[in-house]
Amino acid sequence: MQDSSVYMINQQLLPHKFEIYRSKSYLETANAIKTMIIRGAPAIGAAGAYGFAQAILEFESENFEEFKGHTLKASQFLKATRPTANDLAYAIDFVNGKMFQDSSIAHSKMRAFEAAGNYSDWSAEVCRQIGEHGSKLIINNSSILTHCNAGALACVDFGTALAPIRIAHYNKKNIFVYVDETRPRNQGSSLTAWELAQEKINHAIIADNAAGFYMKNKKIDLAIVGADRIAMNGDVANKIGTYSKAVLAKENNVPFYAAAPLSTFDTNAKSGDDIPIEERHEDEILYISGIDENNQIKKIRIAPEESSAKNPAFDVTPAKYITGIITEKGIIKPAREEIERFVRNK
Amino acid sequence: MQDSSVYMINQQLLPHKFEIYRSKSYLETANAIKTMIIRGAPAIGAAGAYGFAQAILEFESENFEEFKGHTLKASQFLKATRPTANDLAYAIDFVNGKMFQDSSIAHSKMRAFEAAGNYSDWSAEVCRQIGEHGSKLIINNSSILTHCNAGALACVDFGTALAPIRIAHYNKKNIFVYVDETRPRNQGSSLTAWELAQEKINHAIIADNAAGFYMKNKKIDLAIVGADRIAMNGDVANKIGTYSKAVLAKENNVPFYAAAPLSTFDTNAKSGDDIPIEERHEDEILYISGIDENNQIKKIRIAPEESSAKNPAFDVTPAKYITGIITEKGIIKPAREEIERFVRNK
Repeated sequence: MQDSSVYMINQQLLPHKFEIYRSKSYLETANAIKTMIIRGAPAIGAAGAYGFAQAILEFESENFEEFKGHTLKASQFLKATRPTANDLAYAIDFVNGKMFQDSSIAHSKMRAFEAAGNYSDWSAEVCRQIGEHGSKLIINNSSILTHCNAGALACVDFGTALAPIRIAHYNKKNIFVYVDETRPRNQGSSLTAWELAQEKINHAIIADNAAGFYMKNKKIDLAIVGADRIAMNGDVANKIGTYSKAVLAKENNVPFYAAAPLSTFDTNAKSGDDIPIEERHEDEILYISGIDENNQIKKIRIAPEESSAKNPAFDVTPAKYITGIITEKGIIKPAREEIERFVRNK
Repeated sequence: MQDSSVYMINQQLLPHKFEIYRSKSYLETANAIKTMIIRGAPAIGAAGAYGFAQAILEFESENFEEFKGHTLKASQFLKATRPTANDLAYAIDFVNGKMFQDSSIAHSKMRAFEAAGNYSDWSAEVCRQIGEHGSKLIINNSSILTHCNAGALACVDFGTALAPIRIAHYNKKNIFVYVDETRPRNQGSSLTAWELAQEKINHAIIADNAAGFYMKNKKIDLAIVGADRIAMNGDVANKIGTYSKAVLAKENNVPFYAAAPLSTFDTNAKSGDDIPIEERHEDEILYISGIDENNQIKKIRIAPEESSAKNPAFDVTPAKYITGIITEKGIIKPAREEIERFVRNK
């Protein structure tokens, strides 16, 4: 590593523009997470790990007590950028746990960057394993619904929800993906569809309103979504709208899976009630970005000037609507005992 | 009436621009219905009635048999512009039934315009009555969810789903309306929110994905939607996403009402299976319109170039999810016997 810059695909510009964003400092990385230049639970875990390492590297005094104070403040600040995602806190705690092996600030700085790299490698491998386990659920000639983006962009590599789909496609299974547009930020139409198009996986974007229609009309065999945080009873916090699709899936006997690494389980959350839900700015609903006829990115207002909006970013899907959780260690039933066994042994 | 022009608010331009569209001919009116310059079941009923009268007026020969043939062709053409809406066919048949009282083409032309006017007046009065009946369901300090636009714009006056809300507001009840954005055409955020803002009724736009979240969190006391066609067993065809909200309402014990005139019941449809569902162009999902920073209306692409979309415009909500249907004659249970009794006596 030449300097302490962190490089990431700028997801704000996709699908219209592929651009690498270079974050030169801890605060820039925190801002990239907050403004969703980078997003998706595992990806912001890795970005958080690197951002935390950047914060450590930027510390300039030689006082070890001050260094520890700085470390604590940076970790709290980074964790607060996206309060719902469990991987973010998990990744930062991982780096924090590795860096203090002696009282040398220089050693800690070195170890912090090394740990961030290890976290990132580990995260990529975990997603591949999720893909292997999950792909067994996908039979030939089937249609899969997915919501939001839990693909490579959301992760370090394969993705979580998209990993099984990718691997089924690599294994030459004939599949079709219904991509929920995922308002308000359209991660489905702008990121998931973009990833599927890159891989030439057959798909169609649908309005979030149409997912129930296709389930009722027996066009969808299976639903797979990601997860931002999972409580120990199997309640799943994920992108707003996940709860709605899960209820509709149950009503129509469509198996509904969440795909997530074991690091997404929050051992402090007994149930979904313990998961904080991020409320984001109303402008995400009132405005939208796209490209105009001159291929320029434009932001336009789509709602009346006088109207305001409410914008919860996540919802909690109770365990009873979830068929199973696809993890790197296999598929788990969303029930406390089984979850505790897996999470303890991870 | 000076000429045979039909005037309507151009709903394509709302909420950004208030403009009256003047349709000078039958074909222009048919096109205005098809391209949704005018939309909403009762409104396209009235527009269809006037468009049909325009077609009659435009006939130039003196041959009565040819005149009848022209009449039939025009009625079929107009009905096909929006296949799901029952009021459109109903309104055209209404005018057709009034015009042929003798074999004078001149008399028929006169009566056609008179009948279109009568239909329009009757439709406005029916919506007011729906409002009176429905407003009794709305208690003080309550929150109502609505989907799509079934307001004044969709109708000749009060609206259907919005009529009870309007009248509750006129009666000084303190209410709050959650407005489903209603992708893909955003009739909720661009039309319903605009109407509510005009009347200073408290409201917030929400992503369609958030309706379930608010129902689960007990923020919504009641849901009222419109209807495009209702089968004789109480199955309701309405804007895509209605089915999803109805399932979520039932799951969360939120009463779910459809508001519609008795003319929306299709006596030929035994159940929802008999209702044709219009599939609209994928561009409604891939592109969106709004205003840019210079207050200019812009259309932008919001999906990857390589991706396509599927776009069913309506869905059918089975009767079991519907608490009641608010009509001009009172609130009906969605059950065959009661429906037949009301529809026969309308």
